[in-house]
Amino acid sequence: MLKQPAMGDRNMSRRLKASLFILLIVSSAAGSAVAQNDPLPSWNDGAPKKAIMDFVGRVTKDGGADFVPVEERIATFDNDGTLWNEQPMYVELAFTLQEVAKMAPNHPEWQTAQPFAAVLHHDMKAMAASGDEGMMKLFLATHSGMTEEQFEQTVSEWLAASQHPKFKRPYTECVYQPMLELLAYLRANGFKTYIVSGGEQGFMRPLTEKLYGVPPEQVIGTQFKSQYVMKTDAPVIERMAGVLSIDDGPGKPENIQRFIGRKPIAAFGNSDGDIQMLEWTGSNAKPNLELLVHHTDAGREYAYDRQSSMGKLDKGLTEAAEKHWVVVDMKADWKVVFPGPNAQN
Amino acid sequence: MLKQPAMGDRNMSRRLKASLFILLIVSSAAGSAVAQNDPLPSWNDGAPKKAIMDFVGRVTKDGGADFVPVEERIATFDNDGTLWNEQPMYVELAFTLQEVAKMAPNHPEWQTAQPFAAVLHHDMKAMAASGDEGMMKLFLATHSGMTEEQFEQTVSEWLAASQHPKFKRPYTECVYQPMLELLAYLRANGFKTYIVSGGEQGFMRPLTEKLYGVPPEQVIGTQFKSQYVMKTDAPVIERMAGVLSIDDGPGKPENIQRFIGRKPIAAFGNSDGDIQMLEWTGSNAKPNLELLVHHTDAGREYAYDRQSSMGKLDKGLTEAAEKHWVVVDMKADWKVVFPGPNAQN
Repeated sequence: MLKQPAMGDRNMSRRLKASLFILLIVSSAAGSAVAQNDPLPSWNDGAPKKAIMDFVGRVTKDGGADFVPVEERIATFDNDGTLWNEQPMYVELAFTLQEVAKMAPNHPEWQTAQPFAAVLHHDMKAMAASGDEGMMKLFLATHSGMTEEQFEQTVSEWLAASQHPKFKRPYTECVYQPMLELLAYLRANGFKTYIVSGGEQGFMRPLTEKLYGVPPEQVIGTQFKSQYVMKTDAPVIERMAGVLSIDDGPGKPENIQRFIGRKPIAAFGNSDGDIQMLEWTGSNAKPNLELLVHHTDAGREYAYDRQSSMGKLDKGLTEAAEKHWVVVDMKADWKVVFPGPNAQN
Repeated sequence: MLKQPAMGDRNMSRRLKASLFILLIVSSAAGSAVAQNDPLPSWNDGAPKKAIMDFVGRVTKDGGADFVPVEERIATFDNDGTLWNEQPMYVELAFTLQEVAKMAPNHPEWQTAQPFAAVLHHDMKAMAASGDEGMMKLFLATHSGMTEEQFEQTVSEWLAASQHPKFKRPYTECVYQPMLELLAYLRANGFKTYIVSGGEQGFMRPLTEKLYGVPPEQVIGTQFKSQYVMKTDAPVIERMAGVLSIDDGPGKPENIQRFIGRKPIAAFGNSDGDIQMLEWTGSNAKPNLELLVHHTDAGREYAYDRQSSMGKLDKGLTEAAEKHWVVVDMKADWKVVFPGPNAQN
């Protein structure tokens, strides 16, 4: 730090004064370099980056017409396909299928009962035929019947031992670098960043602090029922095989209201399951920003939208044009996709 | 702020030096006065105050054996009977009964259907006979069928127009001054303060920021079902006549896990409905503090415990002794009960 000379000082040597003068120039140059630093270096210059930075500039400008007080700067992010990769299948589904295989020896009935038999015999057609209901059966069977702590440990161990089939890196490194910068940029500007995802809360929470800097109390997801039980030594919370709330589609604004109790001023998603969250945010009387990540990059990541079974973006793409939502063209707008030196950039 | 003279300065006048010396003394005295300021002036010196201050001192002492990082300093507070008055009936019940009367002209069937008839005809015996189930019917009838915003406005208007039958002041002034100081003291020491109450979330949230400095996203309560609906002009969230989660007894730790995802290190309650929240907090491997407010002050407030129909404290009083929970004797431990010059002190 540069120490300013005291006002009344007249005996300072010329040499010292000269040094200080140079220091002042360097310091001032550094200061302006910091001010001009790009908070979103992995974003190409283009409409999405400009829209984000204009919005943040407006809502944080003290005394400006669009100023929003800090406590109302709520930003909500979908997770799968918005903050990290969701192809060829949701990370949580990959976990679920492996857990079914791991648990199968204790469940001989799964050899014939659907959708478990389909998973164990790699029968993709039967699995698809079981639909959302079948998927929920798989989730409930693998996500319940243990305490919260036990489940957290199972998830953490699986993540440490697994990797993405295409990118050959841990799933935890398949997060989107431009979105990490966006999270940090918003927080640096007083935003409280939340995850609002269809993923199950207990699956996401062991990850979100480390991956995204989002603490557990700012993670909203699909919730299963739970039960407080007093054991002989200590109480535990047991995960039950029942759905309390599905955090997808209309469930997203319902859960935002239930958990946060404020309407966001910014919302980020990538699929039709995010439409209602973006609509809800767009109905805020305060200035607001809605953004969809469009996966257009078959080389560095994946290209999919209206026909995809995971992260389908069909109605949302149509609605985005009508409602002036920002659409990120991943291939054109992102300089890099994943963080680190091994990124497929 | 006191500006330090630069090291190399030798020509400063004696007068300026003398002034600075005086400023230094004043500044140092002010600093030590701040340090010695009592953060809990409405608490008499006694075991509860000492336990609170010892605990906060230990968990905030950097490098100490009992240090707890800021992000884990979660404190949860019951509301009715812990932060504000709950006699002769819960504030929300007073609201509910008046709403039933207000809505009755549109519900001729209520003249004969229980528990509504009991309310309309002031039949306390029939009302008591309807039990928890009857109470829930009253809550659902008065708390659903409107949007969140409409309900918030109804609650705010009722609170502005109502007063406590004994204290002849608005319910919003029947908060406990010593607990307001405790909330502020914990927050000043890096704690995140949550309300975890049996009261309905939408009823509490219009109040908590102004009364307690607790923002809506840190208010956990009983939750009704809700439904996101896209109207022609804008989306709304409608309150439905169904219970999603009752935030009382075992529901408190279940909801703490669901909303916060961390175990508290401090919990404050006053009734048997808080037992599980205190047990859960007491099972934290980190240092922790559990406290019950015992209403012993028939003069300044109310005296009740094991036999009370509202805020019954029976099993909790027994358990407190076994588990070394702090029990506040309201009459002995609190210098004042309510804030402001008109307090019944």
